[in-house]
Amino acid sequence: MGKNLAHKLIEQHLVSGVMQPGKEVTLKIDQTLAQDATGTMVMLEFEALGLPKVKTELSAQYVDHNLIQADFKNADDHLFLRSACRKWGLWFSRPGNGISHAVHMACFGIPGKTLLGSDSHTCAGGSLGMLAMGAGGLQVALAMAGLPFSLTMPQIIGVEVTGKLSPWVSAKDVILEMLRRYDVKGGVNKIFEYYGAGLANLSAMDRHVIANMGQEMGATASVFPADETVREFLRQQGREQDFVALHADANAHYDALDNLDLSKIEPMIACPSSPGNVVKVREVEGRPIYQCYIGSSANPGLRDFVIPAKMVEGREVPEEISLDINPSSRQVLEALSSSGDLNRLLEAGARLHQTGCNGCIGMGQAPASGRISLRTVPRNFPGRSGTKEDQVYLCSPETATASAIYGKITDPRAMDMDYPAFREPESLRDMRPLLLAPQEIPVAVELEKGPNIQPLPEFEALPEKLSGPILLKAGDNVSTDEILPAGTDILPLRSNIPAISHYTYSRIDETFYQRATQHGGDSFVIGGENFGQGSSREHAAIAPRYLGVRAVIAVSMARIHRRNLINFGVVPLLFKNADDLGQLNQDDTLSFSDLPSQLQNGHVVTAITGAGKSLELTHNMSDDEVATVVAGGLINYVRDNHLQS
Amino acid sequence: MGKNLAHKLIEQHLVSGVMQPGKEVTLKIDQTLAQDATGTMVMLEFEALGLPKVKTELSAQYVDHNLIQADFKNADDHLFLRSACRKWGLWFSRPGNGISHAVHMACFGIPGKTLLGSDSHTCAGGSLGMLAMGAGGLQVALAMAGLPFSLTMPQIIGVEVTGKLSPWVSAKDVILEMLRRYDVKGGVNKIFEYYGAGLANLSAMDRHVIANMGQEMGATASVFPADETVREFLRQQGREQDFVALHADANAHYDALDNLDLSKIEPMIACPSSPGNVVKVREVEGRPIYQCYIGSSANPGLRDFVIPAKMVEGREVPEEISLDINPSSRQVLEALSSSGDLNRLLEAGARLHQTGCNGCIGMGQAPASGRISLRTVPRNFPGRSGTKEDQVYLCSPETATASAIYGKITDPRAMDMDYPAFREPESLRDMRPLLLAPQEIPVAVELEKGPNIQPLPEFEALPEKLSGPILLKAGDNVSTDEILPAGTDILPLRSNIPAISHYTYSRIDETFYQRATQHGGDSFVIGGENFGQGSSREHAAIAPRYLGVRAVIAVSMARIHRRNLINFGVVPLLFKNADDLGQLNQDDTLSFSDLPSQLQNGHVVTAITGAGKSLELTHNMSDDEVATVVAGGLINYVRDNHLQS
Repeated sequence: MGKNLAHKLIEQHLVSGVMQPGKEVTLKIDQTLAQDATGTMVMLEFEALGLPKVKTELSAQYVDHNLIQADFKNADDHLFLRSACRKWGLWFSRPGNGISHAVHMACFGIPGKTLLGSDSHTCAGGSLGMLAMGAGGLQVALAMAGLPFSLTMPQIIGVEVTGKLSPWVSAKDVILEMLRRYDVKGGVNKIFEYYGAGLANLSAMDRHVIANMGQEMGATASVFPADETVREFLRQQGREQDFVALHADANAHYDALDNLDLSKIEPMIACPSSPGNVVKVREVEGRPIYQCYIGSSANPGLRDFVIPAKMVEGREVPEEISLDINPSSRQVLEALSSSGDLNRLLEAGARLHQTGCNGCIGMGQAPASGRISLRTVPRNFPGRSGTKEDQVYLCSPETATASAIYGKITDPRAMDMDYPAFREPESLRDMRPLLLAPQEIPVAVELEKGPNIQPLPEFEALPEKLSGPILLKAGDNVSTDEILPAGTDILPLRSNIPAISHYTYSRIDETFYQRATQHGGDSFVIGGENFGQGSSREHAAIAPRYLGVRAVIAVSMARIHRRNLINFGVVPLLFKNADDLGQLNQDDTLSFSDLPSQLQNGHVVTAITGAGKSLELTHNMSDDEVATVVAGGLINYVRDNHLQS
Repeated sequence: MGKNLAHKLIEQHLVSGVMQPGKEVTLKIDQTLAQDATGTMVMLEFEALGLPKVKTELSAQYVDHNLIQADFKNADDHLFLRSACRKWGLWFSRPGNGISHAVHMACFGIPGKTLLGSDSHTCAGGSLGMLAMGAGGLQVALAMAGLPFSLTMPQIIGVEVTGKLSPWVSAKDVILEMLRRYDVKGGVNKIFEYYGAGLANLSAMDRHVIANMGQEMGATASVFPADETVREFLRQQGREQDFVALHADANAHYDALDNLDLSKIEPMIACPSSPGNVVKVREVEGRPIYQCYIGSSANPGLRDFVIPAKMVEGREVPEEISLDINPSSRQVLEALSSSGDLNRLLEAGARLHQTGCNGCIGMGQAPASGRISLRTVPRNFPGRSGTKEDQVYLCSPETATASAIYGKITDPRAMDMDYPAFREPESLRDMRPLLLAPQEIPVAVELEKGPNIQPLPEFEALPEKLSGPILLKAGDNVSTDEILPAGTDILPLRSNIPAISHYTYSRIDETFYQRATQHGGDSFVIGGENFGQGSSREHAAIAPRYLGVRAVIAVSMARIHRRNLINFGVVPLLFKNADDLGQLNQDDTLSFSDLPSQLQNGHVVTAITGAGKSLELTHNMSDDEVATVVAGGLINYVRDNHLQS
């Protein structure tokens, strides 16, 4: 039996562990990336580790999230990140260069490398045959320090791709079809590996779209082979020398199989307010829309802007529709300007926004009250757009644009024109000259810390006895956007834990911060399935811990958030019996005796409820993870055990 | 003795009054404009008047201020404004079209017309031989209702322009030289009329720059002749048929004279934090900068972007410098894209922002803590950038760009290249097809009011007896930015007086709102010279009135704010003896007896202080203004006296 490509990538980077699904493995990380909203914390963490220089092959820091600059905070963060890159030898990408994933793919993506990023959509790198994964910032900081990355060995799902997409159907519809099948947690502890004859009909940027939103299924990663299509992409970026052909063996084994006949896929759309809430576009046609949002890391390719431009050419979008164009990178914006496609969009009434993540992460472009927004972004969690009770639908650029033209949700196959042709340009502008390259650091660099950049809080080790109230009882599929929202008020506080903690769980319960600080001591949070899905923000672990939350108990937990909790000393526990969740209420108290020993001695943990009953819980932490959470978090643990300059 | 052009324009529109400086005149208004941050209030006021349709020749509503859309509020405002335009017959300019003044000039500016706008920089229209003035929103609403606009007949200052600008010196340096001479209040109750042979060397967009920042001197208006240069501009816009030649008579009389020899002007810069704090660039050369901000209504011309593009061509701006490009209009952005200048900027590392007012009004792009920002905008009042204790300098695009290239304040004459040539294109894209044109309103239109759009508060008539504490004692040159700030948190509340009132005077005293609401009754504010300078926002009058402020007593007062106070029933009083300001303190009480009669019977008003002393005050209100303030404001007054459907 041959090896699949994911297996090969893991094997080539394996530092420890056995490659059996469910077992812990640790991997050498070749490259890291961070964006600014998580990156300031990554840099503060790296500073806490006390090393003189990063130890990866390549680490890059992008500025793409906090671009509004309502006050000094964002700009101070940008300068801090630049100084940290100069000090420790990272690439620094200035504001305006674009979204980390698109820029990293263009400038630094290399088949066969591992990439760990403090942004959940880092997985987009799988489009080039990389093993690319999102993680909490601290794990990225540790990878920068040369430490291996540990994860649960995932199942490898082989997805055979055949056929060719019909006109007006594009890569976004493919991943939406996958989301229809797997929903937002069907990919947990899985790597989706795509192979087959149909791949020849998907460009590298198409594959980026599919790999990017693998995250929305909860997948650990998505992997595509490095084939001629990848070589073409690298040639276009002036980096053909970085190409390495990589494929699964002919008779590769997979833990499970699936298949996608591209010719059978039709335009799909995720309805409010979950990326897994997918139906065919024609099932919801005719609903009046307010906004058509083009952009984000989920549809970052030049084609994702050129096709809309050709669709609106010579037309005028109704002036009550906001057609928002968010270029994904400087390269894309320049190409659109050169080709005349930018003016095609502007002449139809489009609004051009700055290059970056923007409205995808709630930084502007919020829709009007009660109106429908169609977006090519990867997520439509409740309120993420900035508007409470928003109605955000996720779809392809084709569907979004057709809907903008007609003012209502429209299957793009209803357009009165031929499907526009798109050919990738022979070459695109090399963005690397506008990044600050790592230096050989001949002189000391002072970190530039503005007044909003506050040190990491220190967290104590897990005590023997732990008791306190359940401060919050949450439902299923709680996202990190709900645990600690982004948006224009909150995202600028990412470098300042005391300040950002005011917003902890505010989307679920506005009184949480007040109740937590009034209580003042240890506490717990309980929830349902897929707890902590979505973005990789470790603030969703740090801020609750800062407010005294010592354990989160859920029916199941999303991968990155679970690990972030461990990293900051919050114990991730699971209900042995899911029905117990229904028996517990907010303000009930829980007590644990000898919790460190209980965690160390097995996978069952017993708590005593306020009513004196025993509550059986489990944990799925490895020995190393238990040691970490018992130490009060990864910084304590690593400082004591692992680090050498 | 012949007539000057300003005299002719006023005479042609005179409805009542005598054209003697200092006397009240009322004028027919041909055109109005509003932007969204003031426009929602204009529309609510127009609604309160109960008319079916605007009665001007042309009224236009732009969306250029509240473009961030952090939540539903901005988007709701845009939809509200569009519905109001449809209902009442205004032009509606969608978000993305650009800054009101630039778009209005291009689409609708006509020599000889009067233009009243609820934005203080409406005066830029003087560049085309219009009599263009900023005013409070309510006065714009009344002009829309067909009522004449009253103002104090200004002095007409004749400024003879001779010579030609040297290379690297541009229109911004001209108006900065005027600001050096007149400072921020030297233009109060004055119209600056430019004439002379040197005008042939200033394009229509150069004149826009100069007319725009006439506002910064406190001028009522600035007027340029409608000459061949204006004809060329209108031809470029496809509107040559709108051209009318207009000049002062050959031997025109002016109330005072000044002159500008363009050949003697060198690069100028306004230092923090007043537009009047002007020095030569070479006096402050070498200071390290963080930001170079290109854009705003003060430098909206295509040349203001093309010259920077040519300056940075083939260079790379240091990555610690934020080179922020803010296109002024869709027309300018499209032209920059077509000509390749946009890519010249992008390739040098510039960040392209959306078309609109943006950072000029504190909506993003705030500088880092303690860093210098060079901006081509019209104002650098403290904190207006969004960063408290900011260091914003105002200068030409040439100076800002040279400084970006070298990373420090640089006289552009030090550039190692020839001054780039710029030729206006033969034609520019007509933006009118992307505006919603007024309709003949065959069907009823429902106003679309989102939850943040709250009705105007009703204000009672001025009582006979008035007493209360001085809630605030302010200094000289208090700007409306300090009375009621803009910025990303506050500007979205412009349609909601109860909500926005929380920020009243917060830049001067953060406790004001709390103290005013604790007190709960009538109160007073006192201040020094040039009280209420800057932007035309009437919220700076409405919100204090909503909190109980019944009179503002100052040494002198800026024109638009003074009138806004009257419009909302706040009595604008002046110290007869400026030294009395020093004798009064915050929390002292003041009492007035028979205040309405005192105002009606003369220009002296007596108050009694808490210590029982008499305090002599004056007012400079016309009979009509007194009647207005006694009625409790202009809506009450007009509804009772003037209005017919």
